[in-house]
Amino acid sequence: MACVLGTNRYGKSGIHLLKVTRDGPRHTIVDFLVSVSLEGDFADIHTKGDNSKCLPTDTMKNTVYALAKDDPIISIESFGLRLARHFSTNNPQVALAQVGIVQAPWDRAAVAGKPHPHCFTRGPAESATCTVAITADGAPTTQSGIADLVILKSTDSAFSGFPRDQFTTLPETQDRIFCTSLSVRWDYTAASKGAAVDFTSCRAAIRTTLIETFATHQSKSVQHTLHAMGQAALDGCSAIARITLTMPNKHCLLFDLSRFGMENNNEVFVPTTEPYGLIEATLERC
Amino acid sequence: MACVLGTNRYGKSGIHLLKVTRDGPRHTIVDFLVSVSLEGDFADIHTKGDNSKCLPTDTMKNTVYALAKDDPIISIESFGLRLARHFSTNNPQVALAQVGIVQAPWDRAAVAGKPHPHCFTRGPAESATCTVAITADGAPTTQSGIADLVILKSTDSAFSGFPRDQFTTLPETQDRIFCTSLSVRWDYTAASKGAAVDFTSCRAAIRTTLIETFATHQSKSVQHTLHAMGQAALDGCSAIARITLTMPNKHCLLFDLSRFGMENNNEVFVPTTEPYGLIEATLERC
Amino acid sequence: MACVLGTNRYGKSGIHLLKVTRDGPRHTIVDFLVSVSLEGDFADIHTKGDNSKCLPTDTMKNTVYALAKDDPIISIESFGLRLARHFSTNNPQVALAQVGIVQAPWDRAAVAGKPHPHCFTRGPAESATCTVAITADGAPTTQSGIADLVILKSTDSAFSGFPRDQFTTLPETQDRIFCTSLSVRWDYTAASKGAAVDFTSCRAAIRTTLIETFATHQSKSVQHTLHAMGQAALDGCSAIARITLTMPNKHCLLFDLSRFGMENNNEVFVPTTEPYGLIEATLERC
Amino acid sequence: MACVLGTNRYGKSGIHLLKVTRDGPRHTIVDFLVSVSLEGDFADIHTKGDNSKCLPTDTMKNTVYALAKDDPIISIESFGLRLARHFSTNNPQVALAQVGIVQAPWDRAAVAGKPHPHCFTRGPAESATCTVAITADGAPTTQSGIADLVILKSTDSAFSGFPRDQFTTLPETQDRIFCTSLSVRWDYTAASKGAAVDFTSCRAAIRTTLIETFATHQSKSVQHTLHAMGQAALDGCSAIARITLTMPNKHCLLFDLSRFGMENNNEVFVPTTEPYGLIEATLERC
Repeated sequence: MACVLGTNRYGKSGIHLLKVTRDGPRHTIVDFLVSVSLEGDFADIHTKGDNSKCLPTDTMKNTVYALAKDDPIISIESFGLRLARHFSTNNPQVALAQVGIVQAPWDRAAVAGKPHPHCFTRGPAESATCTVAITADGAPTTQSGIADLVILKSTDSAFSGFPRDQFTTLPETQDRIFCTSLSVRWDYTAASKGAAVDFTSCRAAIRTTLIETFATHQSKSVQHTLHAMGQAALDGCSAIARITLTMPNKHCLLFDLSRFGMENNNEVFVPTTEPYGLIEATLERC
Repeated sequence: MACVLGTNRYGKSGIHLLKVTRDGPRHTIVDFLVSVSLEGDFADIHTKGDNSKCLPTDTMKNTVYALAKDDPIISIESFGLRLARHFSTNNPQVALAQVGIVQAPWDRAAVAGKPHPHCFTRGPAESATCTVAITADGAPTTQSGIADLVILKSTDSAFSGFPRDQFTTLPETQDRIFCTSLSVRWDYTAASKGAAVDFTSCRAAIRTTLIETFATHQSKSVQHTLHAMGQAALDGCSAIARITLTMPNKHCLLFDLSRFGMENNNEVFVPTTEPYGLIEATLERC
Repeated sequence: MACVLGTNRYGKSGIHLLKVTRDGPRHTIVDFLVSVSLEGDFADIHTKGDNSKCLPTDTMKNTVYALAKDDPIISIESFGLRLARHFSTNNPQVALAQVGIVQAPWDRAAVAGKPHPHCFTRGPAESATCTVAITADGAPTTQSGIADLVILKSTDSAFSGFPRDQFTTLPETQDRIFCTSLSVRWDYTAASKGAAVDFTSCRAAIRTTLIETFATHQSKSVQHTLHAMGQAALDGCSAIARITLTMPNKHCLLFDLSRFGMENNNEVFVPTTEPYGLIEATLERC
Repeated sequence: MACVLGTNRYGKSGIHLLKVTRDGPRHTIVDFLVSVSLEGDFADIHTKGDNSKCLPTDTMKNTVYALAKDDPIISIESFGLRLARHFSTNNPQVALAQVGIVQAPWDRAAVAGKPHPHCFTRGPAESATCTVAITADGAPTTQSGIADLVILKSTDSAFSGFPRDQFTTLPETQDRIFCTSLSVRWDYTAASKGAAVDFTSCRAAIRTTLIETFATHQSKSVQHTLHAMGQAALDGCSAIARITLTMPNKHCLLFDLSRFGMENNNEVFVPTTEPYGLIEATLERC
């Protein structure tokens, strides 16, 4: 029976890179998890076992470390684009070269109250992310993001006025805990693609805006706050065209103390992991 | 600055359900992780904080347990479709109701060499999966799959004839270990949508075909074997229209014993987790 | 201020070894996670930075792969003891050489209904374990075990007659689900240390006894069944002197369907992960 | 065959507690994972299925939430001791009541450059820990600690002068990366048990000392630095009698760029997870 090869890609994931830049006694480090993925003219690999167009994923890995050596690594986006361009330029069979980078945070350790020149402590689980791509004609696309920023507000969050059916037991509440592990990604406008975008400053500005909006918003639902956060990010950073926020609702349930003759005035909570609400939306600039 | 709400969805994930069916002394159990996700007319939730169309995710959770009570649970697909249809039918604001189910395997424990009526041991990490959806007009779509089937062959796998560039160090090999954690999902043909598909038998047949093809294929690359597996699945199960296989290459590196004056004739390997090759392709029936 | 170095040890963990034995076309594989830990005369390493007695952990790793090459690997215990003896014999500064091995299960894949000679599928999370040690005078100790055997019975488990205080809300039950992830380890009797113990047969016999006792016991509590299982293991295997069972209670909570006017006759459960009961006891032969 | 019940204990683990203290508009939160474990006169539970002395683990859980309501939670140690004392005092069958607490870090979010009154972001994986116990006669023991403090220095770390055997391939190095995930726990002196120990200040002082010593030590091995860190902690905090440090060596391997005609001057590294060195030692005050 005949069949046809549809969408296909391959690459290397989990390429863990630590680069130390030693500009005198003061070192800086970056900690990246890089993935490379290629699409292109790979039919013969699949159907004939002909590997003549199959750049080994081991070579992709080597390339990441080799190019890291001399790259200034101004941003994850700039390094990612350089990698993607390398794979695109050197492999005519490649139609799309995609590179993802997840940067783990490290903070400079304090010694005697001052930042130390070569000692670092690991930051939160939060990471800076990007997914960049180069097409065969050299056109780049860049998506940047933040993953796993865990944030909690202990008031100014309500959920009420929702429809009730035969299976509804949730009480309405005017004051609940709102906790989420925010992941967000955004695309840059066509206009800013031509211009030099300062990806790192954009990310910092968007991060601050997202946190401040989350903190100060009078939330009527996760969706309500998600929308306000996305709108504030679009308002605050003209270089981006679109933003997608994913907000799992990390429920903190009020523990029922009334069974012991005690009142629980929104003080004692049980954080749970399963099940969890999952809310996602994209906001686009008009 | 104006912005518009784009694609958005919300729901409940991580709904863990264990159902025991007690037909006399011989019990059967199913162990599901269910997720529900809705798309629809949710703009006012986001922009106005108006929750009148916001079915709580807590209600979704309750519904899963309530409908599980009387459902015969013939397959994960049938139960998923019933759930999706419930959310679609009862919520006119919903354009698409999607339900995902991951079934964990349990085997009947053996006592005195015989299967025990009510004692079970947990099977491998491998799970049966489905993602089903119902649109507002009641049309269903069903995607079924298998996740995390870890499989290894200790010979009949080669990788050679690949292009070499300045960063290539990988030696060619005619005999390597091929280990992967297979995840696969498939769509049913339009024709079979009308007919009653036996989802469970299809899954079992596809699983057997995938394993047998993996075992017996003279592999020239992961892609080469992936393609043969996909083709065999399409050949063997006329009810499916398309199949997507994701095969991370769980590299087992030959340990270099030559430094100790010893030969390593493909005997002693170091399984690694990072980095890993990642190969994915869709095959479609012509 | 003076201080003294107390108990200390060091070694290498996470040494992942896959060995393929190629006796003709029918291969066998073993998949081990090995750890090595040494105690001994290491004070100068700590206090003076003198590494002349500090066998590198990298050498420990190399040794595991090198000794694996020619070892018949009759059991994890025999291979572990050989490794421990190597480190003890070759390093006079070592007072105690300890080796731990965790074996991951692989099953032979079926092709056309027959076990395939070189294709394998990964078994359950359950693993065979051992911790062996050699002292400076050459005396061995061996502890064997099973880890993470997940087992569930859907009836014949009660919990009642417990004390109630002001914070007790748990209802008594005569019929609940009993699910645990059993980990167990046992020591061999001094008598059997001299004799040749068939570690693999012992493990298989103990495993069968534990499962059968779990399945058939009329359980009044986790402790009650744990004790019966331990006693049955001691009764069934005269080579062991002592057995320790660790049984986390993987609670499956009855979902409250009465709120929807439905009955839940021990059919619909919510498996939970947090919090969990944790029960542990050692039984010794008199 | 007769057997005797040896050491045994049971309890509840994974009790996740979030407490919000609302002193006016400025909230504070604590995020604890609590475990309770009891030893005592439990033989009849095991051997007879008599639960009359078996305080349910569900009651332990309820008790944690109930006592959290009014406890000022000055420290994890003070709350842990109160819990342990409750279980000991109210259950005469209990010989030892042990409570463990792991506190997850949350930082106050910044809004417009100022700490926000009720919004928080999750800190690093690092946690504050304690294990406290009360015996039947009311005597307390307290062990405090820090878990999973990930710290890295990019220079001032050597490893050389070690013994070489037939399996040694590790080159000597005068400059390597030293990265670890430090876990440490300490006991208080008998003298300080009577006095009121400020557990939180002790922990902060020890943490600072450990990081500063790690940063500034001229390391000749993990053991060498571990010892200096332990000694500094004992020197800096007279309330503690003994300290145990566990330091997995999170190896960062120099990537071999020479194959590409490039030099790697300690710049490009591959962080690895398996295998890893594991070093542990206890230092005691003389």
